[in-house]
Amino acid sequence: MENLNIVPFVSVDNMMKLVLHLGPERVMTDLAGYIEADFRRWQSFDKTPRVASHSEVGVIELMPTSDGEMYGFKYVNGHPKNTKEGLQTVTAFGLLAEVNTGYPILLTEMTILTALRTAAMSALAARQLAPKGATVMAMIGNGAQAEFQALAFKAICGVNEVRLYDIDPAATAKCVRNLAGSGLALTACKTAEEAMEGAGIITTCTADKQCATILTDNMVGAGVHINAVGGDCPGKTELHRDILLRSSIFVEYPPQTRIEGEIQQLDPDHPVTELWQVITGAATGRSDPRQITLFDSVGFAIEDFSALRYIHDQLKALPYSEPLDMIADPDDPRDLYGMLLRAKAKAA
Amino acid sequence: MENLNIVPFVSVDNMMKLVLHLGPERVMTDLAGYIEADFRRWQSFDKTPRVASHSEVGVIELMPTSDGEMYGFKYVNGHPKNTKEGLQTVTAFGLLAEVNTGYPILLTEMTILTALRTAAMSALAARQLAPKGATVMAMIGNGAQAEFQALAFKAICGVNEVRLYDIDPAATAKCVRNLAGSGLALTACKTAEEAMEGAGIITTCTADKQCATILTDNMVGAGVHINAVGGDCPGKTELHRDILLRSSIFVEYPPQTRIEGEIQQLDPDHPVTELWQVITGAATGRSDPRQITLFDSVGFAIEDFSALRYIHDQLKALPYSEPLDMIADPDDPRDLYGMLLRAKAKAA
Repeated sequence: MENLNIVPFVSVDNMMKLVLHLGPERVMTDLAGYIEADFRRWQSFDKTPRVASHSEVGVIELMPTSDGEMYGFKYVNGHPKNTKEGLQTVTAFGLLAEVNTGYPILLTEMTILTALRTAAMSALAARQLAPKGATVMAMIGNGAQAEFQALAFKAICGVNEVRLYDIDPAATAKCVRNLAGSGLALTACKTAEEAMEGAGIITTCTADKQCATILTDNMVGAGVHINAVGGDCPGKTELHRDILLRSSIFVEYPPQTRIEGEIQQLDPDHPVTELWQVITGAATGRSDPRQITLFDSVGFAIEDFSALRYIHDQLKALPYSEPLDMIADPDDPRDLYGMLLRAKAKAA
Repeated sequence: MENLNIVPFVSVDNMMKLVLHLGPERVMTDLAGYIEADFRRWQSFDKTPRVASHSEVGVIELMPTSDGEMYGFKYVNGHPKNTKEGLQTVTAFGLLAEVNTGYPILLTEMTILTALRTAAMSALAARQLAPKGATVMAMIGNGAQAEFQALAFKAICGVNEVRLYDIDPAATAKCVRNLAGSGLALTACKTAEEAMEGAGIITTCTADKQCATILTDNMVGAGVHINAVGGDCPGKTELHRDILLRSSIFVEYPPQTRIEGEIQQLDPDHPVTELWQVITGAATGRSDPRQITLFDSVGFAIEDFSALRYIHDQLKALPYSEPLDMIADPDDPRDLYGMLLRAKAKAA
């Protein structure tokens, strides 16, 4: 019971070291495994839509969940205008605690970790839903999440070609540069339509806080899987409603996705399938090669829990954390004030 | 805009140094001032009952709020059985962020800070509600919160005598020892009744997770102020219902107190007064010397926000924080993956 005041902390620097040590593709493959394992025991989790504090320029959210043994939560913001000010649109950190004591056991940066788990989640969904043998992905929106998506789909779904498009060609150029040497064939495209040529998987990941129409109905043919990542808060969507009406829609947690996802454009009782049920076999995923499947991704607390659990497990063998003196732990738990007095005596 | 990745962190050690540097009585007096200022602008805050995750042995809670400029939240657990295992019943940490960017600007331990703000809140309420000239306080329950309560009432309400009682005499002895030299007259009592002799203020602060009856109706005479601190979650109360029916009841945030406070024993429409309205003058506090006033304290997110704001302000002049590399901040915000690649190149 020693050193209970100490919480292992994974800084940004240590998270980068951990990811580079294991390799981003291995980390995302592992994360997909952790998420899949937790989705298989979906009903053992406390689930609640995230607790959001909205302002005119963005949102700050807390995403808690628990499996009865461990409790995790993530702090995450979403401020699309930040990019213009040189800041991240999304920053995050998270914490894991023991349910039995309430004591934290891990504090970690989660900006990088969220990018990794989001891509891992997308690829896990696509492995269930994408047309058999799809190896070409259109990547529409080439911002902070794009490279992670590309590498996750390579590692987890066998994608070998990514066709990139962004309204800002500099973003596409950055992606091509960063992914050079990854083993992926890369094509910088001038239009979204060009990016979608021959693609069995279409990933949209743009970030404006508005109802945008990145894809219109006439752009989407039969027999594709759409991985819609960027529509993730009220008033922020990417797909034309008509595409949704032609698609079989798969979601993480319906009460949250109805508010935040692409399906905020549909009637509240429009049928959707919960992804965890596809994973356990309780529901059907893709049933027809000509079907359009849509993963309406918004990100759910259990995915962050899986990611926290993964990092916690990795730290059993890897040195990428530092001790944080975060929990007051007097020798006699009733003597909190005495701890102050003893600190005073020691300093004198 | 430099060093946005760095969040100032106040460790337990630094919090103790800060409190000892300023002195606990000054800190609690200052905190009462910050809380009072925030209660005066009550309507400018986003308010929500805390987000609780209950288990058989305790609860883990997130308590967020925002005034539109800053956002704060506290993580706090409550595990009464922890004491027997040598752990704190309550541990906490908190975070302050800028609403405009979503970027955190302070991470701090809050176990000690919560003890300080809880006592400051109690004394602030008593300054509004206690009988004029009350200088004697009964302190029933002599655990981790007791010394803070005693010193806050000394500094803020002019209490000069504290009569202590606990079912465990060792807890009382600890309190007497810790408060020796504080300038308070201290009396260790053998019963709760003895502790209440001549006391104009009665503070109850016990911690069993059950409906206990620390005070029965016949023990409480007219013309006192009851500061009920220990009843603070569903199924956890300290006062007999009959006392409540004789008292004028003051609360922090009714939707939360109805669930967690002593008034969970009453009808959901039993009249209560919101303390912020007493502070602004919109509602009456004590109107009669023979009245029993009751502050049904459960602790509300705005108090933690005030405490976070206070620590943030103190750090402008005091050195009691350390830099935490918590927020990924690539030079180009869209180039999160490139930050990984550059870290790799640097390490090679």
